[in-house]
This record gives sequence, C-alpha cells and structure tokens, in this order.
Amino acid sequence: MGVVVNLDNTPEIQISGGSPSLDPLISLTTADINDVNKLIIHAMDSPVALIPQLAGHLVAAGGKRLRPMLTLASARMCGYTGERHKGLAACVEFIHTATLLHDDVVDESSLRRGLASANSVWGNQASVLVGDFLFSRSFELMVADGSLEVLSVLSRASSVIAEGEVLQLTTTNDTNTGEARYLEVIQAKTAQLFSAACRIGALVASRPKVEEDALETFGMNLGITFQLIDDMLDYSAEQGNLGKTIGDDFKEGKITLPVILAFHRGNDEERKFWRRTLEDLQQEKGDLEYAIELTNKHRALQDTVERAKHYGAIARDAMGIFEDCPEKEALTSAIDFCIHRAY
Amino acid sequence: MGVVVNLDNTPEIQISGGSPSLDPLISLTTADINDVNKLIIHAMDSPVALIPQLAGHLVAAGGKRLRPMLTLASARMCGYTGERHKGLAACVEFIHTATLLHDDVVDESSLRRGLASANSVWGNQASVLVGDFLFSRSFELMVADGSLEVLSVLSRASSVIAEGEVLQLTTTNDTNTGEARYLEVIQAKTAQLFSAACRIGALVASRPKVEEDALETFGMNLGITFQLIDDMLDYSAEQGNLGKTIGDDFKEGKITLPVILAFHRGNDEERKFWRRTLEDLQQEKGDLEYAIELTNKHRALQDTVERAKHYGAIARDAMGIFEDCPEKEALTSAIDFCIHRAY
Repeated sequence: MGVVVNLDNTPEIQISGGSPSLDPLISLTTADINDVNKLIIHAMDSPVALIPQLAGHLVAAGGKRLRPMLTLASARMCGYTGERHKGLAACVEFIHTATLLHDDVVDESSLRRGLASANSVWGNQASVLVGDFLFSRSFELMVADGSLEVLSVLSRASSVIAEGEVLQLTTTNDTNTGEARYLEVIQAKTAQLFSAACRIGALVASRPKVEEDALETFGMNLGITFQLIDDMLDYSAEQGNLGKTIGDDFKEGKITLPVILAFHRGNDEERKFWRRTLEDLQQEKGDLEYAIELTNKHRALQDTVERAKHYGAIARDAMGIFEDCPEKEALTSAIDFCIHRAY
Repeated sequence: MGVVVNLDNTPEIQISGGSPSLDPLISLTTADINDVNKLIIHAMDSPVALIPQLAGHLVAAGGKRLRPMLTLASARMCGYTGERHKGLAACVEFIHTATLLHDDVVDESSLRRGLASANSVWGNQASVLVGDFLFSRSFELMVADGSLEVLSVLSRASSVIAEGEVLQLTTTNDTNTGEARYLEVIQAKTAQLFSAACRIGALVASRPKVEEDALETFGMNLGITFQLIDDMLDYSAEQGNLGKTIGDDFKEGKITLPVILAFHRGNDEERKFWRRTLEDLQQEKGDLEYAIELTNKHRALQDTVERAKHYGAIARDAMGIFEDCPEKEALTSAIDFCIHRAY
C-alpha cells in the first residue's frame, strides 16, 4: 500500500538543496505578505463582532497564502514597483476564504486545516453570511483599486468558481463522472483563481497581453497540478501514517481522479464496491482501506501524479517567455513544491 | 385581535381610485421590465444545468420585482433615455435573489412566496452555491456596465447587506434587542438595497449629487417602511384569516419591532413568555395566538405601522426636489402601497 515512486524517474523535480518547497516564494514575498495580512485584518473589521471573530479564526488557521503570493510574485516579476498588488492579493485571498467558508457548509466539514471549521464552531448560518460578507468586501477592495480590467478578471473568476462548485455538487456520488468532467470541475473550482491571481500580476504592471496570457496559463496549470495532488493525497496511506487526515473525499462520495482511474481500470466486482461506497454512501469499516488498495492495484495514485506532472510541465513552459529572475524561479519552484507533496 | 385602524386618521394615503397599489409603477416600467427579465434569464444561463433550473425556479416564483422597478423608474424620472438602467436593474435583482437563497438556508425555510423554497427542493448545498453564482454573475454584469461609481454603490450595498444579515443573526433569540438595534438590522439587510437601487437611477442619468442623495434617502426610507410592514404582517391575525402564512418570525425567534414594543410595554409575566418562546424557542400550541394577543394589547402592531408612516413621510419629502412627472408619482405611490399592505 502507499505510493511507491522512484525519484530517479522524476528528473524535472529540482531536489538539489533538499525537497522543493515554497521557501523561495515565501522569502521573496515576506514583506509584501505582511502588508497583505494587515489589509486583510483591516478589511474584515466590522462593528458586528461576529464577523472579525469568525474571519479571524480563518486567518489564524493560516494556510499557506499561496494565492496572494502568486499575485505578489507575478507583479514583481513583471517589474511592478507600486503598491496596488497588495490590495489585489488581499482580494484574491478573500475570495478564497469566502469559498472555503461556503465549502465547509456544503461538505458539512468539522475540520479545516486541522482546526475546528468555522461552521462547526459558529454554525452554518454564520458561515454562509460571513462568507457573503468577505466576498462583498473583496469586491469593495477591487472597486477601490479602480481597474475595470482587474474587476473583469476577478468577477469572471468568481462566477467560474461558483459554477465549478455547483458542477462538483452534481458529480458527487456519480461514478459515471469521467476524467474530462473531473478536469472541468478542478479547473473551475481551483485553477481559475490561481490563474486570475497570476494574471492580475501582469495587469497591474501593464505588461503586454502575451505576458498576461502566459501568467494565466502558468496559474491555470499550477492550479490543476495542485488540485490533482491534493486529491491524490486524500487516498495516500502514507499521509495517513504521518497522522494527516485522509479519506474525506471518500467519505463524502466525491469523484476525484484516483477513483475515476481505479473505477475505469477495475472489474465489475470493484465497480460494485465504488458504487456502494460512493454513490449509495453505504460505507463500512475497512472500506477506506480497500479503496486505497484498489487505487494502488490500478496505479491510480501514481498516474494521478503523472497527470499532475503533465500540467506542471505546461505551467513551467508558459514561464519561458520571461527573463530569468528570482521571482520567476520562485514561481516555478511552486510547481515542484506541489508535485513533491506527493512524496 | 387584528389591527383596527381608522382610515380617517391616515390622510396621507391616497385612496382615490381604490387602494394604493404598485400598478402605476408596474405600468410605467412594463416594457423595461420585460427586457430586464430577458437579461436575467440570459445571465443565469450556464452549461451546469442545475444553475438555470434552480435560478429559474426563483424567477418563476416571481415576486414583485420591486427593486429593479425602483432603478428603472428612478432613471427615467432623472431623464435617462439610454439602456444601461436595464442591466443595472438586473444586477439589483440578482443581488436580491442571491440574498433570498442564502436567507432560506439560514432560516431553514421550506416555503418562499408560497412555493417550495429552493433549499427544500435542491438542498442547502445547491442553494448556497447557486446563490454565490448569482452574486458573482451580478458583479460581472456591473463590470460590463463599466461605471466605477455604480460598482462602488452596489459593492458597498452588498457588504452592508451581508453585515446586516450577520447582525440579525446575533439579535435572533435575544429579547434584549432594542428598537435602535432592530432599525440598524433592517436598514442594512433590506433598506440598503432599495436605497442603492434608487441611487443608481440618478447615477446613470449623470444627475447632480443632490439628486443622487435625494433618491438614496427616498430608497432607504421606503425600504425601512417596507420591512416594518412586513414584520408587522407576520403577527397579523387578519393576514392569517386571509390564508397567508404568519408566525414565521415568531417560530424562528426573530426579534422584530412588534415584539420589541410588546416586550418593552409588557409586564414581567409577559416578558417571561417572550423569553420562553423567542429565546429558548420552547413553543407550544396557542403560543402564536397569545403572542398576537399581546402585540394587540400593547398596540404594538398599530405603532409599528405608525413608525412605518414616519419613514414613509421622510421618503415622500425626499422626492420634493424633483419635478412632478408620472415616474415621481409612481415612485411615491410605492410608499402608499407599502403602508397600505397593513390594512
């Protein structure tokens, strides 16, 4: 059980100087991220005490701030020297946070990043409404920035994300979902915001459209890579052995690529198992372990990682048109980081 | 029981030609509203079938389209002859509809305007996510309109609405809520959108700020009037006798003005009753009837209507600076319509 991967077969991962990490991106954006955090705390302020309480819980829960870092580093790579990228990075994080709040309600999650989820502490009602507030506040910040181009990119991204979430809802518990439909879902619900986050870096720097497009492609494919590995890790016995939560997607009957591959490569008996557990949600003790066994039997986890590498490679190539610089290197290393989470 | 009101004491209500109604507003905006409806249907289209299905259910459920009519009539009253007001009226209705969807989830309502609510048919998950979609789509429409001023008014309104909804959540089941706090809630959750809907009418027509402000004041006070009467009707035995649903607010423990007045004017025994039913939500058969009896005993319903008339009068006076015209008359008659719903 577990993912067995020979690192010799993955030459595109830079392993010199230890495992690929987000450290280059983090250190390049530290100063800016501090300002972004201040903007976030300021923007979620409200005389209605529940709002900063609940939003503060989410901010404290942290997360990597990967999306705002993408905006910051993209803008800097494009030679931007102003301050607007910070406010826009905050907008991106607000949209992400609002989505997380609503996701937890939809998934009925009780944990988020190892902490009690907001809905389990304050109830679904507060999570829905504070999510709406963060989302609205994010638009206020964008409007204050004053660029209709940026507004267009981010309002479009928000629609696509919501559309993707609804699409995911309709594929949940449906084992007929194929890889193409799955890809549509993760492009919309995850990769679209990565892509918008990068694109607005070029936009604030007033770079030519070809650079905007390149950063959009980079972000889109980085986002797909990220989500593929995320979905793979939910079936990783090794993650389970490391004490990380696994099996959430299985429990909810979400149809992710590991399942899709195992289902398509499996026999009738196995498909019956997937239908019982994921469609009918009739799950018994030992079912998650058997699901993991099946994904390994069919190389579904390894091949999910292979797919991720494919999109990672597209992301890397999209960056080709930019001059070498620390920001470019840091952004590119985010691809390696995403993939290396699998190991 | 029931509201006993002498119409002779309400000279400001125009009763010539029958009861005040929305008919003047409806007939003046009919052509434009048809276009708005087309825009709405077009904008909620999506390859994700669940989205037009669920959104279509809401649109079919109808409602008066009062808010978009306010935008349309305000723009026309300001002499606007273009087309932008239609798209913006659609934005206003989308924000309203998204709010309704999320409200029903928060309130766990099973009915909306006498039809099954979306959440009871498609589940809370779909309602949350489709609400997010409508909200995002509304911003896309605004961005397409291209006015940062309009974007500023509507994004601010959205934040305030969400803030008001959270505030309402924190006052629910809290009989210590006073009239001032209640007014804050209804200003934010209801009147802010009325106000924004009217203001953008002046904005698209590029009228001087004094006219923008006048329309904002009109909308704000019309919205307060509307909500006061709405909250009063939920305790109206006469409405119950007419077969309309009453008692929803009571059931949920919402603290509205009829309750606040009855609570403040009541004795210890009565306050115990309110605390048991609204704070502890321990409700028995006959409690709603007794609640209605108490609101009548203390003239709480009549005085809620009196308060509504006060705000209605402010709304009417705000319109004083505009030249007489059919649109002005139709907008003003909306005040009378709101108040007359009480009778």
